[in-house]
Amino acid sequence: MAVLSEGLTQVLIPVAALIGLAFALLQWYLVSKIKVSGDSGGHNGYKDRLIEAEFEEGVDALEVSIKCAEIQHAISVGATSFLFTEYRYLSIFTGVFSVIIFLFLGSVKGFSTKSEPCTYNTGNICKPALANALFSTIAFLLGAITSVLSGFLGMKIATYANARTTLQARYGVGKAFITAFRSGAVMGFLLAANGLLVLWVSINLFKLYYGDDWEGLYESITGYGLGGSSMALFGRVGGGIYTKAADVGADLVGKVEKNIPEDDPRNPAVIADNVGDNVGDIAGMGSDLFGSYAESSCAALFVASISSFGVSHNYTAMSYPLIISSMGIVVCLITTLFATDIFEVKNVSDIEPSLKRQLLISTVLMTAGIATVTFFALPSEFTLFNFGTDKVVKNWHLFFCVAIGLWAGLAIGYITEYYTSNAYSPVRDVADSCRTGAATNVIFGLALGYKSVIIPIFSIAIAIYVSFSLAAMYGVSVAALGMLSTIATGLAIDAYGPISDNAGGIAEMAGMSHEIRERTDALDAAGNTTAAIGKGFAIGSAALVSLALFGAFVSRAGIKTVDVLTPKVFIGLIVGAMLPYWFSAMTMKSVGSAALKMVEEVRRQFNTIPGLMEGTAKPDYATCVKISTDASLREMIPPGALVMLTPLIAGTFFGVETLAGVLAGSLVSGVQVAISASNTGGAWDNAKKYIEAGVSEHAKSLGPKGSDPHKAAVIGDTIGDPLKDTSGPSLNILIKLMAVESLVFAPFFATHGGIIFKWL
Amino acid sequence: MAVLSEGLTQVLIPVAALIGLAFALLQWYLVSKIKVSGDSGGHNGYKDRLIEAEFEEGVDALEVSIKCAEIQHAISVGATSFLFTEYRYLSIFTGVFSVIIFLFLGSVKGFSTKSEPCTYNTGNICKPALANALFSTIAFLLGAITSVLSGFLGMKIATYANARTTLQARYGVGKAFITAFRSGAVMGFLLAANGLLVLWVSINLFKLYYGDDWEGLYESITGYGLGGSSMALFGRVGGGIYTKAADVGADLVGKVEKNIPEDDPRNPAVIADNVGDNVGDIAGMGSDLFGSYAESSCAALFVASISSFGVSHNYTAMSYPLIISSMGIVVCLITTLFATDIFEVKNVSDIEPSLKRQLLISTVLMTAGIATVTFFALPSEFTLFNFGTDKVVKNWHLFFCVAIGLWAGLAIGYITEYYTSNAYSPVRDVADSCRTGAATNVIFGLALGYKSVIIPIFSIAIAIYVSFSLAAMYGVSVAALGMLSTIATGLAIDAYGPISDNAGGIAEMAGMSHEIRERTDALDAAGNTTAAIGKGFAIGSAALVSLALFGAFVSRAGIKTVDVLTPKVFIGLIVGAMLPYWFSAMTMKSVGSAALKMVEEVRRQFNTIPGLMEGTAKPDYATCVKISTDASLREMIPPGALVMLTPLIAGTFFGVETLAGVLAGSLVSGVQVAISASNTGGAWDNAKKYIEAGVSEHAKSLGPKGSDPHKAAVIGDTIGDPLKDTSGPSLNILIKLMAVESLVFAPFFATHGGIIFKWL
Repeated sequence: MAVLSEGLTQVLIPVAALIGLAFALLQWYLVSKIKVSGDSGGHNGYKDRLIEAEFEEGVDALEVSIKCAEIQHAISVGATSFLFTEYRYLSIFTGVFSVIIFLFLGSVKGFSTKSEPCTYNTGNICKPALANALFSTIAFLLGAITSVLSGFLGMKIATYANARTTLQARYGVGKAFITAFRSGAVMGFLLAANGLLVLWVSINLFKLYYGDDWEGLYESITGYGLGGSSMALFGRVGGGIYTKAADVGADLVGKVEKNIPEDDPRNPAVIADNVGDNVGDIAGMGSDLFGSYAESSCAALFVASISSFGVSHNYTAMSYPLIISSMGIVVCLITTLFATDIFEVKNVSDIEPSLKRQLLISTVLMTAGIATVTFFALPSEFTLFNFGTDKVVKNWHLFFCVAIGLWAGLAIGYITEYYTSNAYSPVRDVADSCRTGAATNVIFGLALGYKSVIIPIFSIAIAIYVSFSLAAMYGVSVAALGMLSTIATGLAIDAYGPISDNAGGIAEMAGMSHEIRERTDALDAAGNTTAAIGKGFAIGSAALVSLALFGAFVSRAGIKTVDVLTPKVFIGLIVGAMLPYWFSAMTMKSVGSAALKMVEEVRRQFNTIPGLMEGTAKPDYATCVKISTDASLREMIPPGALVMLTPLIAGTFFGVETLAGVLAGSLVSGVQVAISASNTGGAWDNAKKYIEAGVSEHAKSLGPKGSDPHKAAVIGDTIGDPLKDTSGPSLNILIKLMAVESLVFAPFFATHGGIIFKWL
Repeated sequence: MAVLSEGLTQVLIPVAALIGLAFALLQWYLVSKIKVSGDSGGHNGYKDRLIEAEFEEGVDALEVSIKCAEIQHAISVGATSFLFTEYRYLSIFTGVFSVIIFLFLGSVKGFSTKSEPCTYNTGNICKPALANALFSTIAFLLGAITSVLSGFLGMKIATYANARTTLQARYGVGKAFITAFRSGAVMGFLLAANGLLVLWVSINLFKLYYGDDWEGLYESITGYGLGGSSMALFGRVGGGIYTKAADVGADLVGKVEKNIPEDDPRNPAVIADNVGDNVGDIAGMGSDLFGSYAESSCAALFVASISSFGVSHNYTAMSYPLIISSMGIVVCLITTLFATDIFEVKNVSDIEPSLKRQLLISTVLMTAGIATVTFFALPSEFTLFNFGTDKVVKNWHLFFCVAIGLWAGLAIGYITEYYTSNAYSPVRDVADSCRTGAATNVIFGLALGYKSVIIPIFSIAIAIYVSFSLAAMYGVSVAALGMLSTIATGLAIDAYGPISDNAGGIAEMAGMSHEIRERTDALDAAGNTTAAIGKGFAIGSAALVSLALFGAFVSRAGIKTVDVLTPKVFIGLIVGAMLPYWFSAMTMKSVGSAALKMVEEVRRQFNTIPGLMEGTAKPDYATCVKISTDASLREMIPPGALVMLTPLIAGTFFGVETLAGVLAGSLVSGVQVAISASNTGGAWDNAKKYIEAGVSEHAKSLGPKGSDPHKAAVIGDTIGDPLKDTSGPSLNILIKLMAVESLVFAPFFATHGGIIFKWL
């Protein structure tokens, strides 16, 4: 038995979650002490109509501050209104899909209410399939609600923090950095703690019914992962289309045709663009990472439930995945203090090192944390289920599994930084290729993205090999948890990016001085890199999570081998490998079409509103917001349907072997497309920023803004927008969502699936 | 036993090959009747110093004709000189690799000269492993030489035909079409017949030694496929870098900066560009398709040798793959007559239908041909080896296997045409997106390429499922042969493209009238589509061939299952799926860097040679040729090494399971990258041509040349160049070459491979 008692485990997990929540609230309190004035304050929960007393530099200070508050208000209202509309659509989907889950799973044993012998723990009696159908549906709803809540809260915090970051930029880059970073931390800790708490509560409530039937309990809990990820899919795709339609549309007319700066308030699409950052990069990403976390926990718990932990009802060992996450919250809390209290960001060059240090510190501390948890929570030796055979595993094996996932994440983070930061040669080479125009810029950028795949794939492969060899699919699922154990820190530095981007936008729109814009630009350039790192983490962990879910699905569906050399599996594999392309074609075309509409509207406003270009008339922001909203809600349906229906169609008509092929194919192909898309986009964005900032002789020779190389760089940046913020990051949801959906529906497919082949 | 006797089989195959050769010579004779004047005639084998008597339209006629001859001469000399240099490098590689093959395979049984019991046909005695090593090496050399010869002859024909096509364009589009098409047919029939003949001769010569040991005989013959494809790899990559460095470099300065037309003789890179078409698109493609043909034949023969055909020494049934190819030559011969004699191309709108008709006619006729061959050559029932089990197959099963491959090829051809021809909405949508600039053009073009993957993949999946289910891996290999059975027609319409492209270039450079340029442009636009169709065929057949080779490798290596759920296989799968990206990154970066050098040189010449822009001074073509030559020879080494070394490293250090994973991964991922790259590039090229030609109101609203949408389209076209002519078409060689190399080295890997895992 484990050193840690069951009672203590039952206390430690919720306590860690509550500590995380308390820390998030503390950070939020610290951010809230920065006052913004104007009528809008009330909408953010506070009524602060005074600007800070110590700031009295200029006579315009009050005016600027009021303007910031107004803009923040507009962004916040836009984002809230979009999310509410989106959630209305999603509630219909959720309702329909709940019924599907219940009917499909209920039909496994013909809606019988009789208890049955268990599948793995033979000899025991398990709850009826109908109960599993019901509880899976409930878990699905809980996951969906938590996911939506995660995204929404993230957005609220980001729109609360953006203007505050702008205002703090007046006092220096360090203060602005701390504000943006603290706000990111609020989101990170809120999500990590919330996800853990809801999962823990659900397990304990489900246990009231299931009692000793852990197979049924943890099988039902997988619905939580499905709920989380299906909301994340629509969040990412819808948000991604919203933000990039606005961004591309704004850039094409504003920067290219009218030669006005980014975020210029005269541009009618500028509010939509800033709203987009919050609904896409913040809410979408929050839902996404919450989904990954929920799925990897569910995969690990499911695999554990059919192994000796589950069979012998060793609660502490069973809860190992949750204990790792609990430890992760504590480790991330300490890590955050290094950025906010121990080290200080004094000037621009400190920003990137400070963020990179966060990754390193959290990884090092977490390694010790994993060792502790593994020693106290696991018995020294136990048996795992490995596709029909048993595998004896020692507890230090699991330490290596979790640790290698964690360190593979760090490797992916660092290599992503290398390929997307303009401090290194890859991005500088891309910038240099702008000399000969947009075509060479695109060729070099695509080549960079392709090349950036190599090391992450080797890292993932090594992590999979080690964890798989040591502890079969359970090893892979805890490796995924290891990569996600520092999720609070990962989210903090990831959310920091869009907040800084918005802060820059607000500075520009409020007409603040060039100096302040430069400070926010520096924050933003680092933010592009951290956003790419965040995507790298999301993709890497998605690969591991999907493999773990895939393994769980195969166990649950009763398949012994997935042999590439059978036609059923091979056609699944090649069609699965095609799905990321189909999905990307849909999302990129959606962004392109929506952007064309946006361009027409922006052009129309510039042509028909007198005085708009001169700044004497106000543009009609609302129409642009509406174009983005309509496009994203309409266009998120086909790609969403592709992802949600593929497992159902493949499983029902072609059976579990073909579906297993589809999952493996989409996993190995999707990872490549996702990594290359997000790094290519990040590199183009920073190549442009490199030319704009002109920090070196080389950069100066390519600039300034408006030069031919800069124009070529802007074209690359625009092409990269849908790649890095719509297609790329949605693909990791594609691969893991199909896997978790297959797992949830596995009992149905195993019983009733493969109609076509049965008929042939 | 089969209806066809062994003696008759032994006669029919070489007769069909000789008929093919005779037909190729006849077509060549017909082309040669078109006279070009000038000093160069002698270099093409004829001394024709007279222009045609009937052509006396203008006083400049003789002058124009002499100019054409000069340009043709320059292109031919450039291409010949490049290929000879390339072949010098390749001879070193071939020598070294021959030694590797001999040493690796010889070491399997420790260079013993003792005969051993056979692996499959147990009870019989087979020749020693050392003999297999020696004969594999000889087969490798034969394959390499035939491949090089195929590419070289193709280039010779193309450079013989280009000026003749230009001159015929003076009499109308129909005459020019026939000339280009006939020349393509020369290449198509020469390759198909040559490939068949050399293979037939080799088998019969090897048989003198091997006698009844068919296992050893057909195992050694697989070296032929390896030789063919390894030359094809360097041919495609080297030629692809050559042509696109010149093309991109010429366009970036000529079209974008200097605003002079494509192929303008003032552009110093123009000769290199036209040479490139012949060494890349013609010689590279010829080697490529020859390689596919050789490999699918070898895969089918190898699988057959370990099935009942081989065990019972049924020679006719064993030669089924060769008999299909023989029938293919006859069918293609008849098909060609439809284009050259039965139907007539009278105006521009007849060109595309005429080429499309070729595909349909050859497919319909071949279906009947396959039925005939299957009935006469195969016993009504026989047994196939299926990874350790036996499978009973009827002869009509095999008819379906070959036929489904053939029809899947047609489906891929038609869908490729839909996505890359500017007669349909996908390309027109891309052209339309040029209104808002290059960025939307690129976004729409990428989305088009991704989308164009869907139907080809489903076609391939269906072909695989049907053929695999009916006749295991033998079914897949004959399905590949079915797709390639009309290779002579496929190559004819494919080679037609670059010949027309060159003809247009020569018309421009010789200063011929606008009308003639318009005619060659119309030929060229259809050629872009047929080139894309050819690439579609090459990729589709490569997918089937690779799977067949993969199956043969697995049989040879003694693996029973390739289970995705084992860590060794899975890491192979994910790393294999990454290789196409790594490879594309290398080739695209190579083209980009070489193009940058070319741009600098072209700019330098425009800046330093007085009178160049005015047309009074001649540019220094030779330096540009040298830049392309040096770049392609230097840059083809790393991607070549990646492909050649991966199976050796994976097999030797990680063993056959991981290598099997790598092959499956690179296959399912590479197909997608290759199809999307080649269709995206084809679509961009034709979107540009659509705007330039201005055939509809819509097209006119986007044009004319030099308008902003046209400039955006040119940028897309330039980006597409390396995608469609370097990375994309090389990827199909990557997947099949790794598979055939694994097959050849399988005995070594099975005996000595997997060092690392053995050590762990």
